[in-house]
Amino acid sequence: MRRFALLVEYRGGGFVGWQRQDSGVSVQEVLETAAGHLAGGQKVECVAAGRTDAGVHALGQVVHVDLDTDLPPVRVREALNFHTRPHPVSVRAAVEVAPSWHARFSARGRAYEYRIVNRVPRLVLEEGRAWHVRPALDEGAMQTAAALLLGKHDFSSFRAASCQARSALRTLDRLEVVREGETIRVFAEARSFLHHQVRNMVGSLRLVGEGRWAASRVAEVLAARDRTKAGPTAPAEGLCFVRVDYEDDVFSRDRETP
Amino acid sequence: MRRFALLVEYRGGGFVGWQRQDSGVSVQEVLETAAGHLAGGQKVECVAAGRTDAGVHALGQVVHVDLDTDLPPVRVREALNFHTRPHPVSVRAAVEVAPSWHARFSARGRAYEYRIVNRVPRLVLEEGRAWHVRPALDEGAMQTAAALLLGKHDFSSFRAASCQARSALRTLDRLEVVREGETIRVFAEARSFLHHQVRNMVGSLRLVGEGRWAASRVAEVLAARDRTKAGPTAPAEGLCFVRVDYEDDVFSRDRETP
Repeated sequence: MRRFALLVEYRGGGFVGWQRQDSGVSVQEVLETAAGHLAGGQKVECVAAGRTDAGVHALGQVVHVDLDTDLPPVRVREALNFHTRPHPVSVRAAVEVAPSWHARFSARGRAYEYRIVNRVPRLVLEEGRAWHVRPALDEGAMQTAAALLLGKHDFSSFRAASCQARSALRTLDRLEVVREGETIRVFAEARSFLHHQVRNMVGSLRLVGEGRWAASRVAEVLAARDRTKAGPTAPAEGLCFVRVDYEDDVFSRDRETP
Repeated sequence: MRRFALLVEYRGGGFVGWQRQDSGVSVQEVLETAAGHLAGGQKVECVAAGRTDAGVHALGQVVHVDLDTDLPPVRVREALNFHTRPHPVSVRAAVEVAPSWHARFSARGRAYEYRIVNRVPRLVLEEGRAWHVRPALDEGAMQTAAALLLGKHDFSSFRAASCQARSALRTLDRLEVVREGETIRVFAEARSFLHHQVRNMVGSLRLVGEGRWAASRVAEVLAARDRTKAGPTAPAEGLCFVRVDYEDDVFSRDRETP
């Protein structure tokens, strides 16, 4: 048995999320079914660095899977990309890793990007890839508020009721708001995030951007440790899981990875 | 009768292009039908700055239309965006202009962006929005070749057989190749372009990027004034019409335009 690490891209719309569920098609199911073809139809398990919700996209999800195969990693990648068709899931890179390497537990950091398109007319090119916010947003105020969330805190106010983490203590390493024309990008980085944490933080930043909240209110909400104090959850379609960091840059070994 | 200038975004896939054709739905037809609702069902004509081909996207196509209406421009925009549904066409801005103002003839410059995703695995998030090129491309060589096309030349070698322009003389103001990870963007700017000119230039740059052509060959091809000497036409889905320049920044008058 050999363990492979996979760098995976997917379009979240149409999936029930990463995790298998009876209610619809999951990314996990698509990948496990594809991997099963390489394992002679045996049941295989794919473990992801982060269990993205329904509608959330990924550019750099990381997955590990154990396969009883002689194929070199590049052929594993190609075979998976053949069998995942026509689903919007693509394995960007595949490398062999040590059996002790774990997509989730070996991860040192995770990076998300949340995209807002701030304009009145409906979206076309960014439809399904961004949150469409009509009222003019002040990205400077949003950035001021974002900075108040940096560092180690109890993020209970920004945590989904369904969150299963034992502790709500997390260290937010980056929360940056950048505007380019009508597009506002929010970059979030941490060792790990609570369930819905990024979307809940963005939902509150939006209220600051609209001027409905002073930037300082975000610090008060954080201190309250009470989910009912924060803004609504921003929609899934604006969120993209862009990168997972490990101790070593595992995918650099895939020579064909740009 | 009042003349309105419209800033229009569309997704090119599924359309036969800008111009009306019997073979399918055009962006022009969608906009003219929508505008007809504002003109009491009368026939209206929409004139575009550039007649994009089937599959080519637009972020900043500019169109003018004459309407017998009392609506302020912002209401014209909203009404058009209501009536163009569910087609992937959105009017980003609408302003009133002088009756002598012309979307095509008043244009001083046009800007296109051609997007390549250079990787082996199939595309997901950029599917339909970029040219998927598998062999590794040397963007430095592509940029060297691109620079040889700048300035005023007879671009017959990069002109479609169907091109109706009287002269093939054009002045290329910008042709820049920029790589960000696996994405290569080619920015092209000129007062005007010949039919297929951007896609034909990109098709040749790709051959340089792959190392099949020396960068200098692009200058030889240009000098030959012979379409058969250039590379194949790059696919439409990678091309986006991003901006049209006029003597004054007409859309700045639409206060809601970010």
